Amino acid sequence: MKHQRLLEQIHQQVGELIGQGEVASYIPALARVDPDQFGFALCGVDGSEASVGSADTPFSIQSVSKVFSLSLALQLIGEQLWERIGREPSGDPFNSLVQLEHEHGKPRNPFINAGAIAVADRLVSHCVDAKRSLLEMVSGLLDSPVDYDYEVAASEAAHGSRNAATAHFMRSFGNLDNPVEVVLDVYFHQCALTLSCRQMARACAYLANGGVNPGTGGRVLTERQVRRINALMLTCGTYDVAGEFAFMIGLPCKSGVGGGIIATVPEQMSLCVWSPALGPSGNSLAGTKALELFAAEAGVSVF
Amino acid sequence: MKHQRLLEQIHQQVGELIGQGEVASYIPALARVDPDQFGFALCGVDGSEASVGSADTPFSIQSVSKVFSLSLALQLIGEQLWERIGREPSGDPFNSLVQLEHEHGKPRNPFINAGAIAVADRLVSHCVDAKRSLLEMVSGLLDSPVDYDYEVAASEAAHGSRNAATAHFMRSFGNLDNPVEVVLDVYFHQCALTLSCRQMARACAYLANGGVNPGTGGRVLTERQVRRINALMLTCGTYDVAGEFAFMIGLPCKSGVGGGIIATVPEQMSLCVWSPALGPSGNSLAGTKALELFAAEAGVSVF
Amino acid sequence: MKHQRLLEQIHQQVGELIGQGEVASYIPALARVDPDQFGFALCGVDGSEASVGSADTPFSIQSVSKVFSLSLALQLIGEQLWERIGREPSGDPFNSLVQLEHEHGKPRNPFINAGAIAVADRLVSHCVDAKRSLLEMVSGLLDSPVDYDYEVAASEAAHGSRNAATAHFMRSFGNLDNPVEVVLDVYFHQCALTLSCRQMARACAYLANGGVNPGTGGRVLTERQVRRINALMLTCGTYDVAGEFAFMIGLPCKSGVGGGIIATVPEQMSLCVWSPALGPSGNSLAGTKALELFAAEAGVSVF
Amino acid sequence: MKHQRLLEQIHQQVGELIGQGEVASYIPALARVDPDQFGFALCGVDGSEASVGSADTPFSIQSVSKVFSLSLALQLIGEQLWERIGREPSGDPFNSLVQLEHEHGKPRNPFINAGAIAVADRLVSHCVDAKRSLLEMVSGLLDSPVDYDYEVAASEAAHGSRNAATAHFMRSFGNLDNPVEVVLDVYFHQCALTLSCRQMARACAYLANGGVNPGTGGRVLTERQVRRINALMLTCGTYDVAGEFAFMIGLPCKSGVGGGIIATVPEQMSLCVWSPALGPSGNSLAGTKALELFAAEAGVSVF
Repeated sequence: MKHQRLLEQIHQQVGELIGQGEVASYIPALARVDPDQFGFALCGVDGSEASVGSADTPFSIQSVSKVFSLSLALQLIGEQLWERIGREPSGDPFNSLVQLEHEHGKPRNPFINAGAIAVADRLVSHCVDAKRSLLEMVSGLLDSPVDYDYEVAASEAAHGSRNAATAHFMRSFGNLDNPVEVVLDVYFHQCALTLSCRQMARACAYLANGGVNPGTGGRVLTERQVRRINALMLTCGTYDVAGEFAFMIGLPCKSGVGGGIIATVPEQMSLCVWSPALGPSGNSLAGTKALELFAAEAGVSVF
Repeated sequence: MKHQRLLEQIHQQVGELIGQGEVASYIPALARVDPDQFGFALCGVDGSEASVGSADTPFSIQSVSKVFSLSLALQLIGEQLWERIGREPSGDPFNSLVQLEHEHGKPRNPFINAGAIAVADRLVSHCVDAKRSLLEMVSGLLDSPVDYDYEVAASEAAHGSRNAATAHFMRSFGNLDNPVEVVLDVYFHQCALTLSCRQMARACAYLANGGVNPGTGGRVLTERQVRRINALMLTCGTYDVAGEFAFMIGLPCKSGVGGGIIATVPEQMSLCVWSPALGPSGNSLAGTKALELFAAEAGVSVF
Repeated sequence: MKHQRLLEQIHQQVGELIGQGEVASYIPALARVDPDQFGFALCGVDGSEASVGSADTPFSIQSVSKVFSLSLALQLIGEQLWERIGREPSGDPFNSLVQLEHEHGKPRNPFINAGAIAVADRLVSHCVDAKRSLLEMVSGLLDSPVDYDYEVAASEAAHGSRNAATAHFMRSFGNLDNPVEVVLDVYFHQCALTLSCRQMARACAYLANGGVNPGTGGRVLTERQVRRINALMLTCGTYDVAGEFAFMIGLPCKSGVGGGIIATVPEQMSLCVWSPALGPSGNSLAGTKALELFAAEAGVSVF
Repeated sequence: MKHQRLLEQIHQQVGELIGQGEVASYIPALARVDPDQFGFALCGVDGSEASVGSADTPFSIQSVSKVFSLSLALQLIGEQLWERIGREPSGDPFNSLVQLEHEHGKPRNPFINAGAIAVADRLVSHCVDAKRSLLEMVSGLLDSPVDYDYEVAASEAAHGSRNAATAHFMRSFGNLDNPVEVVLDVYFHQCALTLSCRQMARACAYLANGGVNPGTGGRVLTERQVRRINALMLTCGTYDVAGEFAFMIGLPCKSGVGGGIIATVPEQMSLCVWSPALGPSGNSLAGTKALELFAAEAGVSVF
């Protein structure tokens, strides 16, 4: 109950920020999203929930999906994944090829685009149908079916030159086993997953619960694996401002250009906030502020 | 009491690792340190202490000193410091000039060499005698005098070409107000501070105690400022393996090539481990393992 | 007559070098070429010719083709071409993406791969069938039909990840107007042009003759345009050793990984040497030496 | 006689350009030079001379001095010099540290600042008094004493942060044997050499005359060595526009931010033009145009 009241209070506090900033405009399907929306949901490890605003409105989760694809890859191949992908902050713009060249095609971490594409390649190699496996995995987390927004996926593909460059580049270093088109098809669909804040909070609750989905009781990952993901989220989950997030919010977070951000409060709850207008760093402006207020008020910052 | 037993247990567990790796060899004064040493100390926010091994042997704290100089700079000029120095992971080797060129002479964070040199420049501008102010600040934390190892400082200066290049380079961008020699003199002395594990744990306890030194009761920094430092330590405190430390240890840490590492357990205690032989990432091999074991056994990882 | 004797003398002098080095091995069709071959031909601006060795054996001209595609692009769109492509040495490995990133997708010059791909894009935009136009252009230079080696073209495409990365990357900066597959198809075919030394010397004679083909009397380019091409060949025509070529040979040269090299002696003649085994810089070993001897003996170095 | 008339004609033709652009402003001593000056002189290999405008006004030769220091270093240590310095175009801004980092402290060529500093280091190692040796060398070329502008040298030192960074950086790679201050002192004085166009044309005539000074009959360098220098001037002598110079002028050139440019017409003559106002590439605007007109009218372009 106290969390419900806290969310309501925060909803009021960030009111003026909602709609400030710019919605992502690199694809038409995102550019026309109404910026004046805000949702916030949490899911406790005890199954309790709270939410405010448009917490049931589905949105394009974009890069937040990297947490799901990474989780699926860890399920499928475990530690072997790290032979192909690093686990350190990148320190460069999130889609830079320079670092990739210096490091011979091995992406710094699974949350930069290059890394997520390399994860998608691993999924293609280890799944009969990677797109379907990912859908099933997320549907399983929610115990209810989810789907891709196929228009968004097509739009991503039509504007995906830089991701294509990145993929071909990794392939030139031998760090991509499957045809670029196949891998990118998975990647662009994954980015086009559409869920609501409430669904996202539920779907990510295993990250706060030692790897076990509190809703279904099923183990998603080992405790060690979710610790790895949380550590990656804290150090690399929010583009070029991971340091700022660590300070301001102090929780493992993963953001997307659709305006969604998830956060983990280890052993307590998962959070998902969404508001489409982004600040200069590519993170939801009102969403970031809401998480900051929540961490401070609830006293859950790790620092 | 339980912490004392835990330290003793860990001392045994890491026994075989002590002396493995290589001591830093870029200056003679460090190269001749006996690698077969190990100390571990902790200091609780309640003033309790525990220690094992050579916890009273003074060692060259090297880059761990960046925490003290940063703290002093925050005392002196507060948030204004960040006009000159970033707060994000660097993602490049810790002394790279490439990033500095791309970012017009503003170092990524205060824990890479460039950043610490920029902090030293701020100290020179705001202190009558920066070297003395830093000594007084650390002595005050311990309520007992400490000193520089002047041989180490001279040796650093004699082998400081890359740091000199970094400093002149920042100055060429207008991001260093004082003569390079003066700034580097402070920086090289700061690196040559010599303290024991027990002293370090005490001196850093304010980082775990919301900015208040539990030994003296004096406020060192605001709660917000220590949160900033802890966030920086977690995301940037251990050279190129901050992500790995976040996962394996899950605590804000700052390491030095002298083999020392400090760690903060917010609201509980500060830790300092020391063992001179370094692993490939430049962090103490036995020290890193000891912290990992401690975090796991004591259950203090933030994730 | 004296040139014929000079070529024969040089053929003897480089005898021991023929076959030394390594044939290009990144595609099977090139890897199986017999390295023990050598041909050398020249074509005077007066129509005189001379040749030795396997001067009538067709070989894969590879990057030497960049001279033809550049010439065709200059015919079609003139100076406008330079809005898309620079004219300065690159100073980086010939297929580096780093520089391309720093310079926002505009390649340094038309002889690095990125630049040649950008030229191919221009051809696609200004020709009904760019592959055919290029064939017709080269056939016209020789007054006899030439063709692509379609196996080589297919092999290039199958191993073209880095070129694909480069093309998508330029497209992401808006510096490629046509679909990457279409542009690369032209580029890979262009590289698979197959001509003999004698044909190449004839085909390139316009570069020595102020833009007029001495064989047909037809004007290929303006005097100013061939001067531009010769200047580019001298400063950027031989990968990372343009400076060395300028010194050792002192003539505008363009080399290819098939082992062919053309050279211009302005107002006198064009040269083509071919020997498939390459030195460490990717230029024909025996071919480079042969050009060096020719320039020295004939006294035609520009310096 | 015809050259004298040609120079006079060119002086008229470039009249409107004189004073356009900006004089170098990074040091006060250069910033206050009157931009409305222009001189042009040539010196034939037969000893003939021609000149117009302020051809006897001394100016700060700045980077043109790199030709003299390189010549002196080749006299002293010959080919061994190239173990420390490359001979290829750099492709990056002329004072970039990035390339230096990638190439482990070995500068690309002797005409970028890093390369000239490395040459100065070689001079310090092989001369009792490098500054004096350089003065004697240039005085010998003219058979009359020249001197440094000590105010300019001091001003360079006072604004030399980037050069100091470069020097310390090379030293950190072990590619500088002498103390940075000593090396930079030579370098800053060398840049502060002050000569007139007429003196420069005479002093550089050995570059056009196979290494022999036509004025004194003394051999300065071997024929091979001057060919090397001319090749370097053509490919690397004019900052980031070497390709453009090769096309527009077609002669080996070396420029300086003082507004001077020298050019070699092999086997015929040396040229020196000077006009202090610089174009965007850092080369004299009127001077560049004058050389272009001369090369075209006299028909001496190498292409």
